[in-house]
Amino acid sequence: MKYYIGIDLGGTNIVAGVVDEQFHLVTKASNKTNVGRPASEIALTMAQTAKLAAEQAGLSMEQISLVGIGTPGIVDSVTKEVVFAGNLNFSNVPLCQMVEEHLHRPVFIANDADAAAYGEFMAGAGKMQDGSHISNMLAITLGTGVGSGIIIDSKIYNGYGHAGGEFGHTIINVNGRQCSCGRKGCLDVYCSATGLITTTKEHMEKNPDSLMWKLCDGDLNKVDGRTCFDAAQQGDAAGQAAVEEYTTVLAEAIVNAVNTLQPEIICIGGGVSKQGENLLRPIRNYMEQFCFDRFTAHKTEVRIAQLGNDAGVIGAALIGLQAE
Amino acid sequence: MKYYIGIDLGGTNIVAGVVDEQFHLVTKASNKTNVGRPASEIALTMAQTAKLAAEQAGLSMEQISLVGIGTPGIVDSVTKEVVFAGNLNFSNVPLCQMVEEHLHRPVFIANDADAAAYGEFMAGAGKMQDGSHISNMLAITLGTGVGSGIIIDSKIYNGYGHAGGEFGHTIINVNGRQCSCGRKGCLDVYCSATGLITTTKEHMEKNPDSLMWKLCDGDLNKVDGRTCFDAAQQGDAAGQAAVEEYTTVLAEAIVNAVNTLQPEIICIGGGVSKQGENLLRPIRNYMEQFCFDRFTAHKTEVRIAQLGNDAGVIGAALIGLQAE
Repeated sequence: MKYYIGIDLGGTNIVAGVVDEQFHLVTKASNKTNVGRPASEIALTMAQTAKLAAEQAGLSMEQISLVGIGTPGIVDSVTKEVVFAGNLNFSNVPLCQMVEEHLHRPVFIANDADAAAYGEFMAGAGKMQDGSHISNMLAITLGTGVGSGIIIDSKIYNGYGHAGGEFGHTIINVNGRQCSCGRKGCLDVYCSATGLITTTKEHMEKNPDSLMWKLCDGDLNKVDGRTCFDAAQQGDAAGQAAVEEYTTVLAEAIVNAVNTLQPEIICIGGGVSKQGENLLRPIRNYMEQFCFDRFTAHKTEVRIAQLGNDAGVIGAALIGLQAE
Repeated sequence: MKYYIGIDLGGTNIVAGVVDEQFHLVTKASNKTNVGRPASEIALTMAQTAKLAAEQAGLSMEQISLVGIGTPGIVDSVTKEVVFAGNLNFSNVPLCQMVEEHLHRPVFIANDADAAAYGEFMAGAGKMQDGSHISNMLAITLGTGVGSGIIIDSKIYNGYGHAGGEFGHTIINVNGRQCSCGRKGCLDVYCSATGLITTTKEHMEKNPDSLMWKLCDGDLNKVDGRTCFDAAQQGDAAGQAAVEEYTTVLAEAIVNAVNTLQPEIICIGGGVSKQGENLLRPIRNYMEQFCFDRFTAHKTEVRIAQLGNDAGVIGAALIGLQAE
């Protein structure tokens, strides 16, 4: 049996996991990242977390075939450096090499959203029930922001300077809501959970009688990504309007992706994806009307992501397999 | 010397050209398409046009290594069928095979925008002055509509059902201008020459004193893609505002493409691209401010297309080389 270790470097926690050759997560260990420390110290904690995960699985490091790192920021997969990661204060950091010096195993590295997309591709939503294999996938994560990863020809694709794959930072509404990236009207500010909450609040303010006010005890600060979906389920018109506005923009964004990349699968993860069919139904209806792929027998399928928060660790563990 | 023939099937004309192994166009011949005829008749005219081009170049068909077709519509490059082409009234037409029966040479086929993109990639804007090679390119054509073709890993990329690569049909302005595809706010209706004319007219109607009225003899029907650029050049404020509105949306669209695909080169062709630096300057300024690739040393470069209307024929002639 072959084993791989994935290390998911986050702003708060470092999570390491052992993955077996069936791509199942065997064990997980974690430590605090304590952002602000020098990269060498963070790399040491990453290596320690990996060793801990191996130990928990009853494995020595010699039994680990490959190690992979998923990190925030722009990653050069050729030089294996973190080119730029604002929240970690990293600039041209040879993180891969630093971790390798502690683990003495081959270490690979990718952007965290790309690693998570690769995890879903290899072990989650990218697996076909009939045993067939797909080559192209777009993974979208609807969380605090809109994360994304593109898989083309079974490999992570992020462009010339590794600055692509940021589908959340495409404008869908010229002069729309202000985005943190400096532009206005990006998907990020409409399709993220944060964007959903903004949309929900806008509908609440226009509808003082909406059930949504009851669901959040009359307190706008208690509105979350479920508020409008819950109200809509109970027949509240303002809730339904908020859900419709949100899912329409999301469907429009997804058709944008299909009209350009047309992957076999688009998988949707993150907190909002827990709405499952409530989210997929309007997206599918919109796609059937407007996607260019409606003229072909090979249509893009939209699915909910399957690995949850483990996608990042599982994907990181497997990125070395791309080179094979 | 190897020779290739490209056949560009258009709604009005069929153009065939002989291309040599330096990717130079040697001769061109053309015939009317006469849309409405059965596919078999159109295929015969295509073959006749190819033979004519070979003859003009003093070559026999035996001296032609490969033949390629660029056609409107969705093309399955594996089965080599035209899956769907509305304006030709084609549905699952084995066009490649039909032409092959007349020419007895290996025939390949691609969508016409994809073929033109491949032409620019191989023989035009994709060529680097230092002799190095690029792998990824996006070609955008600003004509009656916005055409596009994506090259990834040196091959045409159009997705699972060959329905991708339609960058012009991505929404950039939710609930914006009506697009012919059924959606609202696509790039097509803002960034095409048609979209530019719409924007120009909007600014003229708001500014009855604008120089633009003089430039079109007071007749809105005489407005074309140059009107606002010409007026802006002469210092007309309304003309400058129209140019700014148009180039800003185009720049926003290009950054959308960079943030997702981040190819080495984005090349812009079509009538509007004749504006050259007047078009590129504001795009570059916008990119420097907002592109994610500003954090890396490997930035996407925007260029004007180099092959003009010949891109389609040259690209079609070369598509068989992708298989090598």
